[in-house]
Amino acid sequence: MIGEIIAIGDELTSGRIVNTTSGLAARHLFLLGHQIRAMHTIGDDPKLIGTTLKAAVERSDFILVTGGLGATSDDLTNEAVIKALGLNGAVHPGVKANIESRLGRGEQAAIPLAKLANLPEGVEVLDPDCRMAGYLLWYHNKPLYFLPGVPPQMEFLLRNEVVPRLQAFDAGHAQPVCQRIYRTCGLYEIEINKRLKPLEDQNIEIGYYPVGAEVHVSLTCHRLQKGVENSDFIRTDAFIREALGDDLYGFNEDTLAAVTGKLLAQHGLMLGVAESCTGGLIAASLTEIPGSSRWFKGGTVVYANEAKERLLGIKAETIAKNGAVSSTVARAMAAGTVNHLGCDIAVAATGIAGPDGGTADKPVGTVYLGLAFRGHVSSRRHLFHGSRRQVQEKTAQSAIDMVRRTLLDFNPAQ
Amino acid sequence: MIGEIIAIGDELTSGRIVNTTSGLAARHLFLLGHQIRAMHTIGDDPKLIGTTLKAAVERSDFILVTGGLGATSDDLTNEAVIKALGLNGAVHPGVKANIESRLGRGEQAAIPLAKLANLPEGVEVLDPDCRMAGYLLWYHNKPLYFLPGVPPQMEFLLRNEVVPRLQAFDAGHAQPVCQRIYRTCGLYEIEINKRLKPLEDQNIEIGYYPVGAEVHVSLTCHRLQKGVENSDFIRTDAFIREALGDDLYGFNEDTLAAVTGKLLAQHGLMLGVAESCTGGLIAASLTEIPGSSRWFKGGTVVYANEAKERLLGIKAETIAKNGAVSSTVARAMAAGTVNHLGCDIAVAATGIAGPDGGTADKPVGTVYLGLAFRGHVSSRRHLFHGSRRQVQEKTAQSAIDMVRRTLLDFNPAQ
Repeated sequence: MIGEIIAIGDELTSGRIVNTTSGLAARHLFLLGHQIRAMHTIGDDPKLIGTTLKAAVERSDFILVTGGLGATSDDLTNEAVIKALGLNGAVHPGVKANIESRLGRGEQAAIPLAKLANLPEGVEVLDPDCRMAGYLLWYHNKPLYFLPGVPPQMEFLLRNEVVPRLQAFDAGHAQPVCQRIYRTCGLYEIEINKRLKPLEDQNIEIGYYPVGAEVHVSLTCHRLQKGVENSDFIRTDAFIREALGDDLYGFNEDTLAAVTGKLLAQHGLMLGVAESCTGGLIAASLTEIPGSSRWFKGGTVVYANEAKERLLGIKAETIAKNGAVSSTVARAMAAGTVNHLGCDIAVAATGIAGPDGGTADKPVGTVYLGLAFRGHVSSRRHLFHGSRRQVQEKTAQSAIDMVRRTLLDFNPAQ
Repeated sequence: MIGEIIAIGDELTSGRIVNTTSGLAARHLFLLGHQIRAMHTIGDDPKLIGTTLKAAVERSDFILVTGGLGATSDDLTNEAVIKALGLNGAVHPGVKANIESRLGRGEQAAIPLAKLANLPEGVEVLDPDCRMAGYLLWYHNKPLYFLPGVPPQMEFLLRNEVVPRLQAFDAGHAQPVCQRIYRTCGLYEIEINKRLKPLEDQNIEIGYYPVGAEVHVSLTCHRLQKGVENSDFIRTDAFIREALGDDLYGFNEDTLAAVTGKLLAQHGLMLGVAESCTGGLIAASLTEIPGSSRWFKGGTVVYANEAKERLLGIKAETIAKNGAVSSTVARAMAAGTVNHLGCDIAVAATGIAGPDGGTADKPVGTVYLGLAFRGHVSSRRHLFHGSRRQVQEKTAQSAIDMVRRTLLDFNPAQ
C-alpha cells in the first residue's frame, strides 16, 4: 500500500531536533512492502496540520502521524485533527482511567486531563494499557495512525500495534511484493555489488543499505500470485545466500548481537569482553538483547592504561613496549579477560577512535581486535573511516562478528 | 520570513538514507530569524513534486528544494518544476560550457547533457563556476532555491549563495528570533511545565522535548530590534534558570556526559563505573566524548553475579543475602570500583531492565545507583518505565547525572 508520514513539532521545523522517526518508520514500512509517497514535517500549526492531513488522506492508502499528543500547551495534534476532519472530541475512558490510577490527586489537578484524554470520537487507543499516547482513527475507510513523537515509544507502537493492524488491513488488498533482507558484516558495498552482478537486469530489485560495518541487501520481487513465492524469488534467494556465504549473518530483523548470542547459547559458552577504544559499546550492544545473561558474563572498559593493568593484569612494560594500540595488547586483553573474568571466550578491542591521537603508522581509525578461545589467542587489524562514534560503532560490530565467525568454525567434537 | 523545504528522492522516502539536510537547513535559517513552516520529503514522483511546490509557493515567502538535480534517470526535479509551474525549459549556456570543458568527448556522449543543462528558463545558477547543480528561480515574486541533495554541496551553497541572497531580499521586513535550549535531567516534563507556568500567555514560546530521563526546554522570542536581545528574552531566561536550578545541566548543544566530564576535569578527578543492568551504556556514553581519557579511567560490566565477585571483590554472601538488585550491592559495586580500578569517584548501576526478571517488590525498571566519593558511599533507588533499552538509557543518564550533582555540591576546600 501507499502511505504518507506526517511528523509534528516546532522542535523539528526549527531544526533543533533532527527528525529521525519518520525515516525509521519509512524504512520499517518499506521493508514490509509498502511505499511511502511523502513525509511531511510540520510545526505546531493546527491549520497546516489539518490541510496536510486532508491532502494526504485524499491521495494515499494510510497515514502515520507522529508527535503533538502530549499534555503541554504546544501539543496540538488532537485539536487540529478534530477540527480539520470535522469530528467530535470525546474523553476516552481508558486513557482517563489510566491517568487517574497513575497520578496522585495533586498531580491530577496539575495535569490538563481533559487535554490528554480528549481524543477524536471513536478512535481505538493503540497501547492496550493506555499508558502511551497513540490511536487509530478510521476516516473515509482509511486508517490514520497517530503515534507519540518520542522515538522509542513511536518505534514500540509502530512495531507492536501499527504493523500488525496494517498487515491485517492490507491482507484484503493486493500484496504485490515479496521481500527479504540479507544482513552482512565485514564486506564493502562494492564487493557485494560485484558478487551480485549476475542478478542485474533481471525482474527483481536489489538495494544496498550500509549501516556502519554492516551492509544490508534487500531483494524485492513482485508476486505473481498471492501467498506464493515465485520462482524468480526462490532462485535469486539461493544465489544470494551462496554468493554471500559466511559474510551473511542473518535475515530481515536479525541483529549481529542476537545471532551471535544464539550461537553462544547453542554451544553453552559464556562470553566476556575487554574494551578500550569502544568504551563499553560492545557490551552495550550485547546486553541490549533480552536474555543476554544466558551467554554474556561481563567485561571491562579498560580505557586508561592503568585500568588495563589493574583489571586485566597486563604488564606496564607490555604496553610501553608495544603501545596500547597493538596486536600484542589486544591479545593480552582477550587472554586476561578469560583469566580474570573466568569466561569461555573473550573478545577485546583497542584502537584510535579519534579525533586526536593518530600517527603516521597508526592513523585515526586503526583498531586491533583480540580473541581468546580454548587456549588459542588471535588478533586482527582494521582501519575504519568516519567520525569518532562511527569508528567506535564499526569496531563494536566487527568485534561481535569476530566472535560469530569463530563459533561458525567451531566443532566441539574436536 | 516564512519558508518551506522540499527534499526529493526515493532513497529518502524508503528510509534508506535519513534526511539530515532539511533539518540542517531549517536550523541554519531558523537561527537567522526565519521560520520554517513545513519540510516535505517526496519520492521521485514528478506529479507530487509539482503539487507540493505549488501549494508551498502559495502560502510561504520562500522555498528551498533539495535533490533530484543530477544526471540519472531518477532525477526528475527540473522536469517536474517546468511542468508544474508552466515554464519553458532552456539549455543554460554556463552549465553546458562547464560540462563540456570538464568532460572528454566519450564521457560527454555518455552523459545526458541536455538533461543536466536543461533548466527552467531565466534561472540564476548559484555556483558562480556552474560546477555544482543549483539555481534560483523567481516565481510570483517569491524566491525558489534549488540545491543538490548531497549534504556537503547543499550546505556549501546554502551558506555561501542562498543565505546572502535571502538576507538581501529580507532586508526590509526582518524579524529575527532569539532562542535558547535548556537541558535538564531528573525532572518529569509535567513538573517543568508546572514550574514554568507563570510564563504562559506571554509573548514568548516555550517547547518541551523529553529524551529518556532528560527533558529539553526551548525558549523562543522574537527580537524587536536586529542584533539586540529584547528584555522579554533576558527576563524569561533568568526566570527559567532560577526555576530549573540544579536540574538544569546545560544549554543548546551541551550533553550530560560532556558537562559532567568538564566538571571532573575541573576538579582533576578520574571517574570509574560499574555496570550491571546498563551493560556498558554508561561507559559508552562517556567515551563518546572526544578527550574523555582526561577524566574517565574505565570500569567493569559485571553482568553475571560471578563477574561482580571476580572483578569487584563483592562477596557471594552479600549478593545472596540482599539480591543483586539492591542498594547494598549498588554501594558495594561503587566502592569496589574505587578500590579495584583506583579511581577518584565511581558510579554503579544494578537493576532489572526487563522484559523478564521483575517481581512484586522489584518490578521491571527498578534500578539502584551507587556512588562512591572521598570515602563516602551513597545509593538511590529509581523506577523507570519503558522498554528494556529505554530503562537502560534512562539508568545511564541518571547515573551520569548523579556524578554531576555530586560534583556540584563538592567543595575541594572542605
